Amino acid sequence: MKKKNKKVNAAILIIGNEILSGRTQDKNIAFISNWLNANCGISVNEAVIIPDEEKIIVENILSLSKKFNYVFTTGGIGPTHDDITAKSISKAFKVKYEYHKEAYRILENYYGKKKFNDGRKKMAMMPKGSKLIYNPSSAAPGFLTKNVFSLPGVPSILNSMIENCKRYLLKGPKTYSLTISLSTVESNISKNLSLIQKKYQKFVNVGSYPFFRLGKVGVAIVSRSTSKIKLKQIKRDLLKLAKIKKIKILKI
Amino acid sequence: MKKKNKKVNAAILIIGNEILSGRTQDKNIAFISNWLNANCGISVNEAVIIPDEEKIIVENILSLSKKFNYVFTTGGIGPTHDDITAKSISKAFKVKYEYHKEAYRILENYYGKKKFNDGRKKMAMMPKGSKLIYNPSSAAPGFLTKNVFSLPGVPSILNSMIENCKRYLLKGPKTYSLTISLSTVESNISKNLSLIQKKYQKFVNVGSYPFFRLGKVGVAIVSRSTSKIKLKQIKRDLLKLAKIKKIKILKI
Repeated sequence: MKKKNKKVNAAILIIGNEILSGRTQDKNIAFISNWLNANCGISVNEAVIIPDEEKIIVENILSLSKKFNYVFTTGGIGPTHDDITAKSISKAFKVKYEYHKEAYRILENYYGKKKFNDGRKKMAMMPKGSKLIYNPSSAAPGFLTKNVFSLPGVPSILNSMIENCKRYLLKGPKTYSLTISLSTVESNISKNLSLIQKKYQKFVNVGSYPFFRLGKVGVAIVSRSTSKIKLKQIKRDLLKLAKIKKIKILKI
Repeated sequence: MKKKNKKVNAAILIIGNEILSGRTQDKNIAFISNWLNANCGISVNEAVIIPDEEKIIVENILSLSKKFNYVFTTGGIGPTHDDITAKSISKAFKVKYEYHKEAYRILENYYGKKKFNDGRKKMAMMPKGSKLIYNPSSAAPGFLTKNVFSLPGVPSILNSMIENCKRYLLKGPKTYSLTISLSTVESNISKNLSLIQKKYQKFVNVGSYPFFRLGKVGVAIVSRSTSKIKLKQIKRDLLKLAKIKKIKILKI
């Protein structure tokens, strides 16, 4: 993994009717985003959830792979008729959809020649020229096609594979995050927060998130920056604001 | 709510750095999607998660509101500097961003004149011509601008408001869902499933989802259709498949 000082970004494309219909709660976006930032300094700038439809997958692969340094897809790489991610990516990039020799060997070894049926063989079909992302849980590899990483939808399997994406990724500057939770309501501090955000405009992104927990009302102020020094400075300003306004600090 | 026989669709636009960064796990997509289908027969065909940036919000509002019957935005309608949904929607539709008289009155009554500060007043600023979506939890209303519904990001507040969107929505045909969980692996049934999907191509969408729960491996076959009759027919075919293949049925 090479180090880059410039920002590196990514998009996540969740392919799956089960997420869109609300049947399944997505867990992959938060996982991938946290992992990319913590391990590679890559920030996720967009996430899109779409149905298992070839035309829509093709459109999104083309637009997202142009707009961002990397795209991570999840879902649609299994053995059934609704698994059309590999085929759709081949179409998007106008490359052949064919057996990946190494993937074929891995799967044949895993299942044994007798049990290596058509459904399982399908999992070795990939866009021509793809690189493999090894799968320590259930053998079937993910794949990297141009700047698009394709991973499975099952969170436990995806989680076990993500480390194997690292070798292909450029590293960007990590974003650090500081959360200060105050015992107040947003409107009590909105003016001051706005001034603080302006002061650090170029360096720190300040978010304000009200919460209601166990009957308690509060605001979590989340500052995010690639500079630890700027985060220290903004921390001082935020604590000063709490002091002036006589607001109890719940958590830092 | 008028009844429509034609399909009615929607997109969800989640506005929030906290979701993209992985700090907060989104819960609104699954909730809105389930609610829309169960109560209005509206299916969600796309969901997009974007940062709190005006330019990006404007672009997405314009493209999604053209592509789908309705758009539901969540987040960014509070009193702080990072709450820019209303302003961005005004820009997208080229209408004034101004005080909504009724929203202003509601908020002034709720907080009392003395405590109705600038941050709170900001929550009455909306795109000109917006209709209100009343908020029984915390007063600050959501709003409907053309075909775009803007709701807050806090799930408990959003959930309490969604019923108040109903009066503005056209009703479509409800999608029913049938889940059959089988004690097998996907590749064992992928060929047969593909044939069944082809047989019901126009009427039923069949999805196959492997699971690993408490050490048990299985596949959930989810059939979705607006026709209860077709679902009954496909159920017969799926049970027959299980019988032929001697697969244990875990759950219907």
